[in-house]
Parts: sequence; structure tokens; C-alpha cells
Amino acid sequence: MQKTAIPTLRPRRMGINTHSEPVAYLRADCPVCRSEGFEARTRVMVQVGASSVIATLNIVYGDELLGEGDVGLSEAAWAHLDINSGDTAILTHTRSLDSMSHVRSKIYGNRLTHDGLHAIVTDIVAGNYSDIHLAAFLTASAGSRLDLDEMTSLTDAMVSAGGRIDWSKLTGTPHPRIMDKHCLGGLPGNRTTPIVVSIAAANGLIIPKTSSRAITSPAGTADTMETLTRVTLTEEEMRKVVEQEGGCLVWGGAVSLSPADDILIRVERALDIDSEGQMVASVLSKKIAAGSTHVLIDIPVGATAKVRSPQAGQHIAHHFEKVGEALGIKVRTLITDGSQPVGNGIGPALEARDVLAVLGNSPDAPEDLRHRALQVAGALLEMGEAAAPGHGEAMALETLLSGRALEKLRAICEAQGGFFTPELAQHTRTIHSERTGIVGFINNRLVARLAKLAGAPAAPGAGLYLHTHLGRRVEKGEVLMTVYAETPGELAYALEFYDGHREMLRIEDESV
Amino acid sequence: MQKTAIPTLRPRRMGINTHSEPVAYLRADCPVCRSEGFEARTRVMVQVGASSVIATLNIVYGDELLGEGDVGLSEAAWAHLDINSGDTAILTHTRSLDSMSHVRSKIYGNRLTHDGLHAIVTDIVAGNYSDIHLAAFLTASAGSRLDLDEMTSLTDAMVSAGGRIDWSKLTGTPHPRIMDKHCLGGLPGNRTTPIVVSIAAANGLIIPKTSSRAITSPAGTADTMETLTRVTLTEEEMRKVVEQEGGCLVWGGAVSLSPADDILIRVERALDIDSEGQMVASVLSKKIAAGSTHVLIDIPVGATAKVRSPQAGQHIAHHFEKVGEALGIKVRTLITDGSQPVGNGIGPALEARDVLAVLGNSPDAPEDLRHRALQVAGALLEMGEAAAPGHGEAMALETLLSGRALEKLRAICEAQGGFFTPELAQHTRTIHSERTGIVGFINNRLVARLAKLAGAPAAPGAGLYLHTHLGRRVEKGEVLMTVYAETPGELAYALEFYDGHREMLRIEDESV
Repeated sequence: MQKTAIPTLRPRRMGINTHSEPVAYLRADCPVCRSEGFEARTRVMVQVGASSVIATLNIVYGDELLGEGDVGLSEAAWAHLDINSGDTAILTHTRSLDSMSHVRSKIYGNRLTHDGLHAIVTDIVAGNYSDIHLAAFLTASAGSRLDLDEMTSLTDAMVSAGGRIDWSKLTGTPHPRIMDKHCLGGLPGNRTTPIVVSIAAANGLIIPKTSSRAITSPAGTADTMETLTRVTLTEEEMRKVVEQEGGCLVWGGAVSLSPADDILIRVERALDIDSEGQMVASVLSKKIAAGSTHVLIDIPVGATAKVRSPQAGQHIAHHFEKVGEALGIKVRTLITDGSQPVGNGIGPALEARDVLAVLGNSPDAPEDLRHRALQVAGALLEMGEAAAPGHGEAMALETLLSGRALEKLRAICEAQGGFFTPELAQHTRTIHSERTGIVGFINNRLVARLAKLAGAPAAPGAGLYLHTHLGRRVEKGEVLMTVYAETPGELAYALEFYDGHREMLRIEDESV
Repeated sequence: MQKTAIPTLRPRRMGINTHSEPVAYLRADCPVCRSEGFEARTRVMVQVGASSVIATLNIVYGDELLGEGDVGLSEAAWAHLDINSGDTAILTHTRSLDSMSHVRSKIYGNRLTHDGLHAIVTDIVAGNYSDIHLAAFLTASAGSRLDLDEMTSLTDAMVSAGGRIDWSKLTGTPHPRIMDKHCLGGLPGNRTTPIVVSIAAANGLIIPKTSSRAITSPAGTADTMETLTRVTLTEEEMRKVVEQEGGCLVWGGAVSLSPADDILIRVERALDIDSEGQMVASVLSKKIAAGSTHVLIDIPVGATAKVRSPQAGQHIAHHFEKVGEALGIKVRTLITDGSQPVGNGIGPALEARDVLAVLGNSPDAPEDLRHRALQVAGALLEMGEAAAPGHGEAMALETLLSGRALEKLRAICEAQGGFFTPELAQHTRTIHSERTGIVGFINNRLVARLAKLAGAPAAPGAGLYLHTHLGRRVEKGEVLMTVYAETPGELAYALEFYDGHREMLRIEDESV
């Protein structure tokens, strides 16, 4: 649409973080508000030079926040635009969001096409979808509403929308075998990754592992690794570490793989709906973008884990494998026990200590973590053909016992920028059993929440140490947990939560 | 959950209009951000004294916008809270939104129960649903996903969530017959309501009409009536007018009927999805809340109207009637021609002039508007048993010709606060036909957009006057439209839009 005289505005950075949704702020008395018929929460197109972004409009009253002729921009809006001093901004109505016609078609019960999904994901990454559009897309693809073709197209679209790491120069071969692993999560303390990567790399596999920080949990692998080394590496630095050591353990956020996923995850969390298709696409798009060719997916199954029944686990496993196949990567799945937290520590430094105890063959190393790590590492060694079928776990054990795994972790950390000792928080309190009996049930979700209230993961030394596990006998007065916090306030806060939720760790009669 | 020492904050009104979604602003360095693990777009519970609201969090950097220890509140958040000078605010995590479990259940394919819908609507009206939740609810009930029972429960829940006008004292009878009419819309200029209400009230029917302002159109009935009289009346004032004149023509927004509807409509518009169930509930909840017992629904059908096929019209008609029946009101439907704009004027004052021309039996009164109004008024007179079946339209015509209808409109306006003359905007331009031929097609949506760009409805005198209609023969150079605007800028803006969209009024060869 052509216009006669488009009023220009001065862009102003408001310093307001609205997460991924770009927001523009206009004064109510601004002439453009009236001439364009803008009102609060209209979606507007903001153009500065050749750059543009679709933003949600907020209307500002008075003259305190904005000067006359200013348009305020949230951090997300600012980041999308290329603004230099003296630049002016133009605000217009958005063109209709064409890709929403595909979402609407899906809402009315039709299948999403390959082209439709690519158009949707392109618009999402460009910031064109508001929360309303994102929620509609996720709702329309909830549960098992996406079939295999749709999952494959969605994964492919999410890969295309971001960068993709090419490892072909690494080994000189055009198709190097790039290993990766992923755990569907939901188990506090389940920090097998550093152990698995160390064992795999020590046996000659190439495993450039990128991990996430915690989203809803007390620690992500990246948070745990950060207590041991530097994890924010550029793609170039990461490449050098992998060239030298065969593996790395870095934060994936720094290399921006599958940016659509980061946007969708926030809305998915708010809705708290499961979508198998979104989960498969989320995981595999990040792996493919990271250049992985062989991916092992660990699927813990348990009443309070993310996947709650073995049947559901098998179903998901099938889809992971099929979508991987369609997109040219090899995916293997491993269904594991997800009935309780893994290891003793929950929180970045506490989990790092468990990892070091396992790698150092310490007598107080948590046996369950050690067992799970060997199981996953064994499967990975077989998948990468470093071990013959059926011999992976033995090879993993040998690597651990010989000290070569610990040596590899240390070397990877040194290559990433140094090998640090994880420090625990100073304020602690022990929680004792009120009775004698058997540990009958541990609620993963409540235990995770307790660790978060104590400060994890923002406070890397905070969290909790579990002194017992499912099925163990405890005496009245015996220590069940130690809570770690950096401030007395956070410690008190966590303990009060425990008082209100003692059912998180249930001690039952022995006779039962 | 209990807490030790909850940090309190000073509430500060930011003067930011975020529409209906409450937003809270916290400084990134605020201790509560860290201790509670708040991040941008977390949903938080804000409590001030006994009042509370769930808000979306925005994180503010620097100290320009907020002082230390401040929590900023958007207009919507501020309005939900009861804040006096010196009050402190507490921010905590929201409890889980229990009613979302019903939405999730619907997403997974189950039916919504009566109790579930009541819980959802209660939370929506309390401001507990973010855009994400609202969009998921609307998506899950899109198309024909709500069955009759669900529509009925949703309508009932929307009525319960707001006020309801009781007219029983008016006539002394416990069950007075309260008439109402509604048009599904989509036709620019279709301003039959003032004419219909005048004819009905002149014949002794009770018709307390509440109307909306324009949402996406160049004028709502309330906007048009505002050029003739005062429309923002309290419920008490409205009651007095109806007692005296049998009818009124006021703005419904002032009496706050079906508040859930106002919240849902914005999100529905952004998604641009049709939901039959939401439409039925939206219309009928407002009518029932207004105390209506007999409602006539005008359903215009046409290629660019809201309902596009007679089949779809019949389907919707059936649902309106059935839901009305289930909730104890009588609903009749009338399927009418929706192929082109109605009347000549489009815009508040221009449409008011058409209304006056029809009521004044002026020779230049638009015949189509007159015809439609008589059709609707006739049906209403029969429904209200003021006319025998088959004699409604004749009675309506007689009322019009005798001048009693105009007299009634004038009396209603005087009772509401005065009878004004609608003033047209000063800047005008005529648009001429480029060729000789027959008017073959008029695009309702583009014509409406042209009137809006000229300034309607914010500028009540702005809009356009159509000098021709479908099927009419026009000569090259003949005037097709006159555009009215309050400023030269808006006039130019509208004309440029016309230049780019001349297909809005298609002149075809006569031989066709």
C-alpha cells in the first residue's frame, strides 16, 4: 500500500525485556496512533532502514516514559532491528500473516504440508508470530496431532531456519560420523552426559556435545559443566576443542541452533501441553543443526518423569527413529528407569561433584549414576562401532576404571579454557527422617523444586544432596538430605517449602 | 506455600496500556527476581492487600523507568488491584491455573463439561488467562468443535461471569417480554437498528437495545447513535429511558455485559479463526445478560459477508435457536442478502443521515436500507405478537409512513440526553467512474477499509457516500463515491488506498 506522507518516529531503547515477543511503545497522543487506528496490542510493522520487525503495540500515557515523536522498543524489538544513531522508524499496519492460513487449516483438521510448515517456522524465527499465534500453532499440533510426515517436515523446517555446523573438514572425510546423545529429561541429578562424552571421546568417537542450561530444572548439563570449565564458546573455538580432543561439552545457546525451538519452548511451557511432534522436532532439529549423524536418545520412564509409561516410551522411540531416518541421520533409543532422581547431588556444583566421583572411581560415587552412564556410553560405543555389539558396556567400564575417562574430561576442560573445582554453597542444613522405614516414593518434581528454591541453578553451589534412595531402609533421625544455599534467606525459603511438602520423600512401613 | 520473609515492593502505575493483559514490571537487579527465579514473561501473582491479579512479568534494565524496590503496573494490572497511597505489593509465583486442565482435556479431544466451562470463564474474567491460554482455548473450540451442549454451557458461563439486567419491575409482570435484535454483521452501512427499534417501540414493544462500537468496521450502531444523541448511559438511566419510551439505543460497553466476551474477541480477531460456538455464545450471552427474552438474529449471507453460504447460514441459525431454547429465551433467525453494502453512507454521521432519511420518508432515502429495516422490524413485530403472522412488514411500513417511527426515535434520543444533527466532515473528494458499464461487484471489506482510512469511526463525520449500487448502470465520469475526512492528510491517505484497490467497485461491460 502506498502512502502520502508517512510520519517518522525516533526509535528509543526502553530497556524492557519482554522475552522473545517484540513490543513497541507509542504515546497515546502520537498522531500515527490516530491516523493508523492503532490501539493497544495491535500488531505493527516497525521499519528502520532496510530492517523490520513485527511488534505488539503498547500505548503509553503522559510524557514521562516517551518524548513526543518517540517510538519505544523492547529489547527483542531492538535486537531485530539495525539501528544507528539518527535513524528514524516508520510504523505501519502489518501485512496479513500469510503462514497463519496453514495454521488455521490445521486447526480445522487438515494436515500441514511441507511448504506450510516451512512458511510457519520462517515467520516464527522472524518474530512475526505473537504469543496468540504461537499458542494456536502449538495447540493445533498438541498430543499426537502431527503424523510422521508432519514431524519430519517440522524438524526439517526448524533446521533450515537456523545455522548448521559442518564437520566434514574435521576428519577429511566427506561424511564423518558425528555422535550425540540426548536425554528426554525429567530426572533431577541425571548428569550422565559429561561421563558419557568422556568415555566416548576417550575411545576415538567424535562427539561435539552442545547442552542446554536449565529451563525448569535445578541444573542443565551446561550449568553443571560451567562449574568445571568455560562453556560459552564460539563455533570456531568449539571446533578447535573437538579437533584436538574428539569431544566437547559446551553451551548450545552460544551457537544458536534451531532458533524456532527457543521461541516455541516458552509458550509450550506456559500451556503445559505435551506434543509428541513438537518434542521430536525440538530434539532432532537441534541435533541435526549441530551436525550430528548418530544420535542416542535416552528415554527415562517413570510416574513423575516426562514419559510416564513404557508404552508411551516405545511410541516416542519409534517416531524419533523414523524422523531421523527420513532426514538422513541414525537415531537409536534407550528406554531407562525414570522412577527416582539419579546420583546424590541436585544442583550444578553438587552434580559436578557426583560426575567427578564417578570418573575418579571414588568409593562414595553414586552407583546409580555410574550404572546409567555406563549403559548409555556402552550403547553409544556400539552405535559408533568402537565396540562390537554386546561389548559396549564392558568397554565403557574399562575406560572408566583405567582413569582414561577422567583424563579425557580434564583434557576437554583444559581445551575449553581451564579445569575448575566445583564449589558448594556455604549455608547448609540437614533434613532428618521422622521415622524408621523404607524409602517408598520420591517425587522428582518436588525434589527439583526444593533445589531451585535453595538457589539452583542461578547459584551454582546451591541445591541438595540426597543421602538415600528408593528402597533403602532408614532409621528415625537418619539424615535424608542436605540443603545447600548461598544466603540464609534462600536456605530458610527452601526449608519452609520442605515443611509444606514432606511427601516428596515418603518413608513407608518395612512390612509393606 | 508459606514463606519466611516476603520482600515487599512499592506499586507504581506505569501509564502503559497493554489492553486486557495485566503486565508487571520489575528491575532486573530486584532481589525478588532472583529469589523467586522470575524471568521475562513469567506469570506472577501480584497482591496488594486483599486484592490480587495474575500478571505477565517484564524485566526492566537500568534505573530510568523504575526506582529500587518498585514494581511497575500496566493499566490493566492497576485496574484489577485496589491500591491506596502507601500500600505495598507482594509478588509470588502463580498457583497453577487449574481450569487449564479442562482446556488441555479439550485439546486432547475430550468434550468440555458444564463445570469445566464455568471454571474457564471465571478465570478468564479474573484476568488469569494470558494470551497464550486464551489462544489455546479458542483454538481448541474453533470451527465446529463445540457441540450444542458445550455452546449452551459456554453461553451460560459467560452470562454468569457478568451482570444481568432484570426488567421484571418495569411492567409489573414477573416475565415481561423483552425484545432484542442482532445482526451478524460484515455489511458496511447496514444500520437498520435505529429504524427497527423506533418502529418496534412505537408499536408498544419493549426493546432496550444495547449496541457495540465498531471493532473492525467503520461504524458500530453505538458510534452512529452517538452522532444523534448521548449513548453512554448508566443502567439506571437506561432503565428510565425504557420505562418512558419502551426502547433505548445505548452503548453496551457502559453496562458491562458478558465481560468474558470482550477479552476473547480481541484474541479471536488476532487469530482470524471462525468458531461457531464462540460466536453463538458471544451474541447470546450479551443478549441474555441484557435481560432479553425474544431475540431476532439477522444473518446476512454473501461472498464477502461474515457468513458466506446459505448452508452455513442455516447451520448457524439452528444453533442460535437451540442454545436460546436451552437457556430459556426465544430466538428467531432471518437469513438476508449480504452481497453488498447497505444504504449510501458508511461512517457514523453518514449512516445516521441515511437512518434519518428513511425515517423521514425522504425521496433520497436509500431504498435497500429501508427495505431491510422493514423486513427485520416486521419479523420482530410478529415475534413480539404486536402484529399477526404475515402482517408485520405492513405494520412496520405504516409506522414509518405515518411518521410515528421518526417521532419515536426523536423521543428516545431526547430521553437519552438530546437529539443532535449529525455533522459531516469538511474535506471531501468525489471518485468518478473510468468507464461506462454496470456495477458488477462491490467488495464489502475494501469499502469498509477505505472508510476507516478516511477516519471513521474515530472521526464521526468521516467515511464515504456510495452514489451507486450493484447492478446499476453508470456512465464514464459519473460520481461513484464521495470520500469525507476531517483532515487533508486522512483524505489523501484514503484516496491513495482507493488508487491501489480500484477493484473494490468493479464496472463491467453491459453485454455481460
